[in-house]
Amino acid sequence: MIQKRLHIEEYVKGVLACDKVVLGRAISLIESNAEEDLKLADTVMNELIPHTGNSIRIGITGVPGAGKSTFIETFGNFLTEKAGKKLAVLAIDPTSKKSKGSILGDKTRMEKLASSKNAFIRPSPTGKTLGGVAANTREVMLLCEASGYEVIIIETVGVGQSESTVKEMVDFFLLLVLAGMGDELQGIKKGIIEMADLIAVNKADGDNKIKAEKARNQLGMALHLFPLPESGMPVKTLTCSALNNTGIEKIWEEITSYEKHTKDSGFFHKNRKEQHVRWLHQYIKNKLESDFFQNQQIQSELSRIEKNVSEGIISPLQGSVILLNLYRQSG
Amino acid sequence: MIQKRLHIEEYVKGVLACDKVVLGRAISLIESNAEEDLKLADTVMNELIPHTGNSIRIGITGVPGAGKSTFIETFGNFLTEKAGKKLAVLAIDPTSKKSKGSILGDKTRMEKLASSKNAFIRPSPTGKTLGGVAANTREVMLLCEASGYEVIIIETVGVGQSESTVKEMVDFFLLLVLAGMGDELQGIKKGIIEMADLIAVNKADGDNKIKAEKARNQLGMALHLFPLPESGMPVKTLTCSALNNTGIEKIWEEITSYEKHTKDSGFFHKNRKEQHVRWLHQYIKNKLESDFFQNQQIQSELSRIEKNVSEGIISPLQGSVILLNLYRQSG
Repeated sequence: MIQKRLHIEEYVKGVLACDKVVLGRAISLIESNAEEDLKLADTVMNELIPHTGNSIRIGITGVPGAGKSTFIETFGNFLTEKAGKKLAVLAIDPTSKKSKGSILGDKTRMEKLASSKNAFIRPSPTGKTLGGVAANTREVMLLCEASGYEVIIIETVGVGQSESTVKEMVDFFLLLVLAGMGDELQGIKKGIIEMADLIAVNKADGDNKIKAEKARNQLGMALHLFPLPESGMPVKTLTCSALNNTGIEKIWEEITSYEKHTKDSGFFHKNRKEQHVRWLHQYIKNKLESDFFQNQQIQSELSRIEKNVSEGIISPLQGSVILLNLYRQSG
Repeated sequence: MIQKRLHIEEYVKGVLACDKVVLGRAISLIESNAEEDLKLADTVMNELIPHTGNSIRIGITGVPGAGKSTFIETFGNFLTEKAGKKLAVLAIDPTSKKSKGSILGDKTRMEKLASSKNAFIRPSPTGKTLGGVAANTREVMLLCEASGYEVIIIETVGVGQSESTVKEMVDFFLLLVLAGMGDELQGIKKGIIEMADLIAVNKADGDNKIKAEKARNQLGMALHLFPLPESGMPVKTLTCSALNNTGIEKIWEEITSYEKHTKDSGFFHKNRKEQHVRWLHQYIKNKLESDFFQNQQIQSELSRIEKNVSEGIISPLQGSVILLNLYRQSG
């Protein structure tokens, strides 16, 4: 860490008082890899955990070009201004790989929202990711909840495994798509459609309006053939235009209706409890694996074994036995 | 193991000669947990691995009541008699939980096929499963290939995670569904549809024929909206009747056409190589995890920590730190 560390009490009080500067520093503390920070972070988290959980957690993903940033800007402004909500956006900065993770990058993407006193935007740090999502996004979300943010949006990049990781963190998953791509969903990774609680066809404006409505209709019919989500709530399809600010309120209505129904049915809290236990297991598995794959002996042998396995010279099981023996001996 | 062990050479020669008795004993050896069997199994596998890989590996799953057993019986008889293929079926005995895994159970399910000299049917042992699939199914498949079986069918039960595990083992994934269930795919776990390379509407016979054709049509339209599989081959939809033996040959034609096209495009072998490397990683992860979760200290603390995590008393990350420290100290 570059900044001087605060005292435990300063972190705790600052976060609870929603002091954005302290919240930001608490997040940096959580994201730090330094040994002495881990212990402090753990203590701070310990104090704050009773104050977490009071938000609706929303994952947002979309096909490339679906207009995620503009949507989050428009949707976020609606939430903070019209709906009177405190909103935290944990954004994945698409430019971060090039620019080494600039907060500026994200602030430019969501200029108006970033200046709202009721909004807190935090881009993910580069590196140290877990399936495309920052390893500490879960903890950052909890910190934001302790600061009283009532809506947490987690944006995902729409590639790789990030969606299933985010799906595991959120109460509600929104998928943004576009009309007029021929086969409507060609840009989406397999499996993502079935994670969605709501699919919105964005850019339903101007000449595109009729096409968007048609795409929404087709999607609705296709989804009808597929299983109900575990929540028991049918997946809705809507159109919206983040540019013209239409259809945005309807999306929020769907989300609040979903929240109400799943809280009444008990699914909401059951799902969260199960998610938390899966996070626990996930953290354990990740640590066991990273210890293994970062082991020097393993690193020097892995690619040779992988090559032999992929070419059928040794079986995958044999390969695993060789590597696991090596690991045990090195410990 | 109850049976006396054979010599290495006897296993190797017997398997290569397709001696079904020896093949069965080699499989039992592979499935054994006894320490002395592991080493022998490893040596046998080592000798046989150059003789593996020459089959088409087919996963078959279906909604409950879709008629998987009857389908495999009819399809299997077609393969062994009409197509002149040697077929191994690694079947999951649905009664095995009650009957403690009876080979008899499976033989009754596929009576005619079981008596064919060109067919080898092996039910999965109970217990020791990995996402609903026997932990050693991959190795059993390789043994069958070493015995010269040209088509390997892996049946899955259609619940839980078994499909994604099987998808990772096979070249081609066939999903059996039924018409006339209202919302056609309500019985299928989410995500399975998108794994399929071919969806067949079974029981397209008698009064059901028109309904089946309509369901096939609807499915075809719905699938059209979804992304192409990684293979680049569009997912086909067909109807068939395992009972009346109609549409069966067409399914085999689709599979051979798929095999030809993906071999020409290079996807077939690329996919297998990647699968093998993923198996390697999977074995390693499974072993790391099972060592952890079978640790006595962990077993005595896990449920208490899980409870605290699920109720939000401690964070998932904190829970993982407590357990990992405990594990390290116990080692």
